[in-house]
Amino acid sequence: MKVKSISILGLGLIGGSIAKSLKASETTFKIFGYDKDEILEQALSQNVIDEKLASIEESKKSEIIFLCFPLDLSLKVFKELAPKLDSSNLITDVCGVKNIFHEEWNKINSKGFFVGGHPMTGKEVSGFQNSDSLLFENSIYILTNEVKDYFAWNDFIEIIHKLGARINFLSPKVHDIVVASVSHLPQLLAVSLINSASLQNNDIHFYDYAAGGFRDMTRIASSSFDIWESIIKLNKEKILAAFDSFENEFQQIKSLIENGELEKLAEKFESARKKRDEIPKNRKGMISQLFDLFVFVKDQPGEISKISTALYKQNINIKDMELLKIREGSGGTFRLAFSKLEEAKLAKKILEEEGFLTNF
Amino acid sequence: MKVKSISILGLGLIGGSIAKSLKASETTFKIFGYDKDEILEQALSQNVIDEKLASIEESKKSEIIFLCFPLDLSLKVFKELAPKLDSSNLITDVCGVKNIFHEEWNKINSKGFFVGGHPMTGKEVSGFQNSDSLLFENSIYILTNEVKDYFAWNDFIEIIHKLGARINFLSPKVHDIVVASVSHLPQLLAVSLINSASLQNNDIHFYDYAAGGFRDMTRIASSSFDIWESIIKLNKEKILAAFDSFENEFQQIKSLIENGELEKLAEKFESARKKRDEIPKNRKGMISQLFDLFVFVKDQPGEISKISTALYKQNINIKDMELLKIREGSGGTFRLAFSKLEEAKLAKKILEEEGFLTNF
Repeated sequence: MKVKSISILGLGLIGGSIAKSLKASETTFKIFGYDKDEILEQALSQNVIDEKLASIEESKKSEIIFLCFPLDLSLKVFKELAPKLDSSNLITDVCGVKNIFHEEWNKINSKGFFVGGHPMTGKEVSGFQNSDSLLFENSIYILTNEVKDYFAWNDFIEIIHKLGARINFLSPKVHDIVVASVSHLPQLLAVSLINSASLQNNDIHFYDYAAGGFRDMTRIASSSFDIWESIIKLNKEKILAAFDSFENEFQQIKSLIENGELEKLAEKFESARKKRDEIPKNRKGMISQLFDLFVFVKDQPGEISKISTALYKQNINIKDMELLKIREGSGGTFRLAFSKLEEAKLAKKILEEEGFLTNF
Repeated sequence: MKVKSISILGLGLIGGSIAKSLKASETTFKIFGYDKDEILEQALSQNVIDEKLASIEESKKSEIIFLCFPLDLSLKVFKELAPKLDSSNLITDVCGVKNIFHEEWNKINSKGFFVGGHPMTGKEVSGFQNSDSLLFENSIYILTNEVKDYFAWNDFIEIIHKLGARINFLSPKVHDIVVASVSHLPQLLAVSLINSASLQNNDIHFYDYAAGGFRDMTRIASSSFDIWESIIKLNKEKILAAFDSFENEFQQIKSLIENGELEKLAEKFESARKKRDEIPKNRKGMISQLFDLFVFVKDQPGEISKISTALYKQNINIKDMELLKIREGSGGTFRLAFSKLEEAKLAKKILEEEGFLTNF
């Protein structure tokens, strides 16, 4: 590897996870970090970075610079640092909006190189303390350009692969259109939906009757505006276009209902169902299909132990496990999942012999 | 109990679950059922009903009649059966739209009694084979009127309580407004969202980049139109009102973005976050708060067995369990939940002694 060191500016959830993941993969290059002193001390003492940087500018001594601050700060640092780079440096950000970085880059006369990056992963919690060497495993890492002129481009690609991520290339503009549609618009819809639900009748607590769909659809409405402010500012045009596209569909559906055109509405549902089913199912990062088995359990200590031990004895690996519903004092239903249909069938047999009620 | 028998018309998910749940609670009255012959034979052989009815009209011999067909068929049967009832009969439906039943009831000159019902529970699967004696446990059962003149009204209330449900009274009109807002509108938004996302660019598979929020928001878009057609037809007015209320919010947010009024947009987010946090958390029917512990496990047989057995030995009851993320070949993170903080702390200690990495 031609890269002797990398610098990570900002050791939050993403930056910290990059460092931890690379450390876990036995790299030959050094990892430098920049953040608040207390975070740097933690990272050093946990052997997550090799050395701390005294300033952002010192990152120039590394070939590859990961810019991992929040969006607004990343953009500010990018404008300051990029003009100072030389031809040995590649700078890459990890922000959720991409075109603005390319626009800025085009204004700058830099001897260095830039590649836009957006790792499609995350957690509901943030900060170094929640960073995790496995955060990128099986996730998609979007890159918005190729920089084949950069002397260590192959090393950069190898580093992203070392994180466990799969690389997809999208142009920065297409990236911003896609995330406006599948991330930014849904956030704003969730905010609109929950605010609209409570407008109508102050005497009734609508939320007491919120079914699963409503809960699912408004879950992201709990997000803090802090992370959204700069995204909305910096991707305004694409977000408004996504609004228009949504509104067009929404108005069509509204007028089909108004006019009682239920056959055409059925087509809308059918199209939505087909499209929804296209979404890759591996929500937890699983690549291959799993086979489910449902097991009914009593609400008492030892039930899970009994299930898992019985399967372990037959060397069956439970790939996923989820308690679907519990009734306190009575029992609940577990979903277990296995790699192979035969395993699921064998598990059913074993658990029924143990006295459990099961169902595919 | 004054009730000698109940009749359940339609032994699908809801009707079948009512029968199973009442059978499990050792009732003194008989349970009659009406459905297709093959379903009735199954229900009889599983001792879920005591006798089969040869016709819908035969249900008049029971004091209480549960009308558990799909919405459109329930409404049709309601119109036919209600005029024939006498003063010993109480008919109750279980449909998701309520005002239409009251409108029909007011047109009918019946000697019997009617109470509208809507059990707020369900599964993603339907039919008798998926019915479940625990379906109503801890769920809300909406009743749209009180029928204190009915001689066995207290028995009816007791029967609903025997299902394990909690009763909330809402007027039929308010019910229809609430469900339009928290159930019907979200369904139509999900359909609009997923259809709009794919309009914009045919070359790029938007869904490949669908983040958790988009997946959550469009999950219900997989529902079949069959169950929605009659709901949309019969609750049209309230659904269109919910559309207007949503559109009003949505347009406000759109214009705040257009005009860069981010402080006011922050208020919208803050209001949404607060309202979202008001939604009861017991998504799986749990009444009380649980205490989470996160455990990192390797992807190999026996890990769950090790965890659950270690906790069982100390008599600790795992109340909830969920695999949050797995990385094939490496490992994953489990969320375990306990009734008490002390139990969660003790579990942490026990599992760390067993060599697991844990985190609150």
